[in-house]
Amino acid sequence: MLKKILLSENEIPKQWYNIVADMVNKPLPPLNPATKEVLSAEDLEPIFAKELIQQEMSQDRWIDIPEEVRELYKIWRPTPLVRATGLEKALGTPAHIYFKNESVSPIGSHKLNSALPQAYYNKKQGIKRLTTETGAGQWGAALSFASSVFKLDLEVYMVKVSYEQKPYRRMMMQTWGANVIASPSNKTESGRSILAKDPNNSGSLGIAISEAVEMAAKDPDTRYTLGSVLNHVSLHQTVIGLESEKQMEIAGEYPDIVVGCFGGGSNFSGISFPFLRHKIVDGKGIRIIASEPASCPKLSRGKFEYDFGDSVGLTPLLPMYTLGHDFQPADIHAGGLRYHGAGTIVSQLRKDGLIEVQAIPQLETFEAGQLFANTEGIIPAPESTHAIATVIREALKAKEEGVQKNILFCLSGHGLIDMTAYDQYLTGNMSNYKLTDEEISKTTDSLEKLV
Amino acid sequence: MLKKILLSENEIPKQWYNIVADMVNKPLPPLNPATKEVLSAEDLEPIFAKELIQQEMSQDRWIDIPEEVRELYKIWRPTPLVRATGLEKALGTPAHIYFKNESVSPIGSHKLNSALPQAYYNKKQGIKRLTTETGAGQWGAALSFASSVFKLDLEVYMVKVSYEQKPYRRMMMQTWGANVIASPSNKTESGRSILAKDPNNSGSLGIAISEAVEMAAKDPDTRYTLGSVLNHVSLHQTVIGLESEKQMEIAGEYPDIVVGCFGGGSNFSGISFPFLRHKIVDGKGIRIIASEPASCPKLSRGKFEYDFGDSVGLTPLLPMYTLGHDFQPADIHAGGLRYHGAGTIVSQLRKDGLIEVQAIPQLETFEAGQLFANTEGIIPAPESTHAIATVIREALKAKEEGVQKNILFCLSGHGLIDMTAYDQYLTGNMSNYKLTDEEISKTTDSLEKLV
Repeated sequence: MLKKILLSENEIPKQWYNIVADMVNKPLPPLNPATKEVLSAEDLEPIFAKELIQQEMSQDRWIDIPEEVRELYKIWRPTPLVRATGLEKALGTPAHIYFKNESVSPIGSHKLNSALPQAYYNKKQGIKRLTTETGAGQWGAALSFASSVFKLDLEVYMVKVSYEQKPYRRMMMQTWGANVIASPSNKTESGRSILAKDPNNSGSLGIAISEAVEMAAKDPDTRYTLGSVLNHVSLHQTVIGLESEKQMEIAGEYPDIVVGCFGGGSNFSGISFPFLRHKIVDGKGIRIIASEPASCPKLSRGKFEYDFGDSVGLTPLLPMYTLGHDFQPADIHAGGLRYHGAGTIVSQLRKDGLIEVQAIPQLETFEAGQLFANTEGIIPAPESTHAIATVIREALKAKEEGVQKNILFCLSGHGLIDMTAYDQYLTGNMSNYKLTDEEISKTTDSLEKLV
Repeated sequence: MLKKILLSENEIPKQWYNIVADMVNKPLPPLNPATKEVLSAEDLEPIFAKELIQQEMSQDRWIDIPEEVRELYKIWRPTPLVRATGLEKALGTPAHIYFKNESVSPIGSHKLNSALPQAYYNKKQGIKRLTTETGAGQWGAALSFASSVFKLDLEVYMVKVSYEQKPYRRMMMQTWGANVIASPSNKTESGRSILAKDPNNSGSLGIAISEAVEMAAKDPDTRYTLGSVLNHVSLHQTVIGLESEKQMEIAGEYPDIVVGCFGGGSNFSGISFPFLRHKIVDGKGIRIIASEPASCPKLSRGKFEYDFGDSVGLTPLLPMYTLGHDFQPADIHAGGLRYHGAGTIVSQLRKDGLIEVQAIPQLETFEAGQLFANTEGIIPAPESTHAIATVIREALKAKEEGVQKNILFCLSGHGLIDMTAYDQYLTGNMSNYKLTDEEISKTTDSLEKLV
């Protein structure tokens, strides 16, 4: 039996898959927050590259991957599909567990799948400089390398507390030539206004987004980029699931269950949309599970409403499952999952009952992560451990029921830059944050009905 | 053109290659330091597993890789051979540059190639516990995962200054279940004797070796393991070069130059010995270059003599190029290259003129590492940047001369746990340590003629 299913470079997909084409209920459109009118492409042009806006709004099923981007994907793609035989044995489960190993990318996660095309389309349009925000730094690292390749200047607004506490990812971004700025900063009006009120403000993703968007909006040679939530990001990430489909076929099996961790939706969409297509179009009996933190349970306990994408309220209004744009998630280690809302496509799919959700407490995720490290060798990113925890739940259920299930999940990244989190877990200093009903009701009660 | 040459799992070598069989001048034998007699296998049995001692002394050309080890190699092997097209373009060189990407292993370096068989043979013999020492932690991390797989207890003596300054690798080892002890410790007589004299001693590789050897020697269920220098370690690492041979054949090219960084010899032997075979046996015109730090230039400026493997003087006497077992290398970031001597096989090959050496100053290595990161995406380990610096020198020479050369090097690991080193480089706070003639003459004058 093969441990890994590999594909050759000419099997890297030539097109991304756009699930909107196959959705019975299309996602509701984003709205202009000032007019409450449906947002136009022109509204977005000062902020995003034109071709990315087209992709954001496209209803085409297949969108060509530019040859330049495919060439760069070859640095690490196709990624291996690995049979987690060590984990299966440790669990004593009849389930066959497969994982798509996105941790082999040079930056250590799946984020590069979208960073490269985003940098490419901006370069093609003649843009000189990109801005973005980053929390823990996975997206910032990916865009730093992508900007280096396409010789674009890059400003990354990194949440100040992460800038100080997670120096390794800052140093990675700087090694690739990015200008990394602790946010809130004195460079922007948004930053200065925050600092005027509170000189010791330690920052938030919402503030960092405001700074990055502001810098893009005021310079015609600059555009903003985002690593999750948006439709075009999900689109780019479908290379994960499209490769996995071919690899499962080579393995001679089809997944009964597909799992991805869930923050804004980038790796989850990537692994699941190509399989969801067969559920929607061909009626395949397949369960799709999003694993989110119990401390930030937007899909399991949020409301489906129009809400802002950022905390401050500068972005368009998006129809999504949300805990409220002013929701302050607990300081869990899976920084990539600390976001108040879900992307609009995933939200619609959830509303239509096409995907399931599990909310996992932090300690269970690290227990899963350590077992995975000891059986498969790879220390997973704190985000990815959520998917592993769900896989373990499902594999043990299969054992109890005595049925052989095929379970596929996305290992979105490795955790080598997140070792302090494992240290806290191993030394018994980790909290298990779980949102109480009271906290949730407080949060959802505070949501405005915007439309 | 393919960016990466991949092999299938059934192309993982079935045998390791032992270059001793093909050497015209065999390496001189190790000596018992007390009697100055040639060391016997029995002398080593309290310290090492029996099958590893047999391999250490073997003259057989091919040694079977146990099926259990091959199964575990499948977690990440065969590793990709990558054409460094981005680097070639940046240099404007006619050279074709290939690298064997050992950084894709779950621990991030080639060390796992030997950690797994070493744990396997010990387990097979009924050993319950392993000890080892580690500096920066690459070897300790590899052995931690290997011990976890074979359910062996493991004690890692980690040089105290690294234990405190490089917490991420310590945390990795602990995640895989190892007991990591800052050395010098109170657990051993060696440690206690050092601490009695100097309670604030910050440790050295030599002291850590003494502690690990002592703990193995006094318990019949415990054995010691080492991640470099020894013949059986070089043997296990030949999977690197054996796979590369097949991959270069698929690429339709043969290397003119093979490069590896050099500390004790593990990755250098691995990439080069299978090609050296054809130089020795078939007279292939191929240059083999070891890249060592200018601050620890054992191969370029040391003497070929019998010397101890550790600083304290507890190990057998080994015939090697050495700067003296009491040599204190500068505190460079390539911790894996800070060793006073070269393995006995490489030393003999060097003496016989079969390999070349380049000694590289630290700043040149990080300049090379950053260029590689910006063109190929992977931030290389500080050790590996030495090989890259040599490759860049040779590629620029090929450009000057207008000749197309094929250059192959081993990317022994990634540098994601070593980001503070890049930070020092980028902020202009890095020293360029180069040993002066005076320092060298002082060192080599202090060497005893032991035989």
